[in-house]
Amino acid sequence: LPVVAIVGVGLIGGSIGLALRERGLARRVIGVARREETVRAAMERGAIDEGTLDAREGVASADLVVLCTPVLTIPPLAERIAERLWPGTIVTDVGSTKEYLSREVSRRLPPGCPFVGGHPMAGSEKGGVEAARADLFEGATWVLCPGELDPLARLASWVLALGARPICMEAEAHDRVVAAISHLPHVAAAALVNAVVAGGEERDVLRTFIAGGFTSTSRIASSPPELWRDICLTNRESVLATLGHFRAALARFEEALRREDAAGLLAAFADAREAREELIR
Amino acid sequence: LPVVAIVGVGLIGGSIGLALRERGLARRVIGVARREETVRAAMERGAIDEGTLDAREGVASADLVVLCTPVLTIPPLAERIAERLWPGTIVTDVGSTKEYLSREVSRRLPPGCPFVGGHPMAGSEKGGVEAARADLFEGATWVLCPGELDPLARLASWVLALGARPICMEAEAHDRVVAAISHLPHVAAAALVNAVVAGGEERDVLRTFIAGGFTSTSRIASSPPELWRDICLTNRESVLATLGHFRAALARFEEALRREDAAGLLAAFADAREAREELIR
Repeated sequence: LPVVAIVGVGLIGGSIGLALRERGLARRVIGVARREETVRAAMERGAIDEGTLDAREGVASADLVVLCTPVLTIPPLAERIAERLWPGTIVTDVGSTKEYLSREVSRRLPPGCPFVGGHPMAGSEKGGVEAARADLFEGATWVLCPGELDPLARLASWVLALGARPICMEAEAHDRVVAAISHLPHVAAAALVNAVVAGGEERDVLRTFIAGGFTSTSRIASSPPELWRDICLTNRESVLATLGHFRAALARFEEALRREDAAGLLAAFADAREAREELIR
Repeated sequence: LPVVAIVGVGLIGGSIGLALRERGLARRVIGVARREETVRAAMERGAIDEGTLDAREGVASADLVVLCTPVLTIPPLAERIAERLWPGTIVTDVGSTKEYLSREVSRRLPPGCPFVGGHPMAGSEKGGVEAARADLFEGATWVLCPGELDPLARLASWVLALGARPICMEAEAHDRVVAAISHLPHVAAAALVNAVVAGGEERDVLRTFIAGGFTSTSRIASSPPELWRDICLTNRESVLATLGHFRAALARFEEALRREDAAGLLAAFADAREAREELIR
């Protein structure tokens, strides 16, 4: 069994730790956090066996290092830990944008330490180890980017053991798909909330009128802003492309409504319902 | 106890029937539907005591008539039933746009039959009596539009008895608030789904990547398209105004991302999180 170092024990890192320990998949789980209270919380939740504030110390005895910090902090982190990794240590991550990370992390690691970019398609609008769950990855797609075959195969088995479904996909293709199915919904939800309060209606009145529609449509607008800033910035072109599609899709509704085109409006709503029913099965 | 006629026994009408019967609030609940199988389903669910396909017959013995059909069908329905209403029968509805309905329904009813527009802030993306629930209105805001005091007071007690919280609000103000908090999210969710599939990614691949974010953000895009066409058309100006705010809110994200303005992007996400946390308490 490997010694696993999880750098960043928030929602995702904490959930990996819980799953590893609950399923007996690691000899030892070492957690690295920036703050003492996070280490303590992760210990109390049973997500890690031991914790440290020093990433270099945390990874020194690991067979597998999982980088679970916000996207833009991962490359400097890779740089910092590089010289403390044993040859043969596999490094992976869980960042939402893979082209940027595959490029920026690989070149900072020593030759004997392969990097395999990863991305579990699971999450929550709630951050932090308090929201971590051992079953967070149950049945979830977990993308692994192509690279050296042996570490890729080991990680694929590891992901399977965590209850997720590993699929191998080029970083660029991954980034385009998640821009549409994940990054766009986050931007749309945030813009929706900003638009709702921009109309000048009193917030107490708006609150009175909230039903399930607003609640679920806006849920992920409560996600940590720093994470989503980084994700957008490191998947800029694909996110801008999906925002263009979204602008066009909205214009279709707006134009039909402006022209009082009942058939056009119905078709736009019907297309959406049909596409969603096909996607969510 | 009143005899209540519910015209349109779908999600809302069916839920009213279930709540009335479960709480013993009606002498008899008469359901009116367009199709025989809907009457049968509503009987089987226990949402009505008896059913008919003839609206004129259905309302003839009612003390309270609740119109629960799609918005644009309500005025012609009012016209059709008008001459069969007893003087003193109170008529209400559950339509999502109140200015249009208050105007169009009132003038079609006979003098002795007061109309009080209503709108329960509860629903589901699933339509039909199959999705009806006796507790759908539990704790939900239920708007009643101002009008004659006696019928308004009776309806307010009736709404309270159903477990909801009646509030009295002018139709125009209601329409502006629901445009922002309910109608805009429906259009946004539908446009989001259309944008996601517009990018040309294969649907099987997109499906593999679906996590909680897309699922909840797009949930109400599965709502019945006819309902939402009618709602948009009858609340056109307010919905167009909120779409303008939404366009501006999206442009803020898009511009910040285009300029790689990390601080601007963070602020836009942070504003959304803060506003949502304040609204959802």
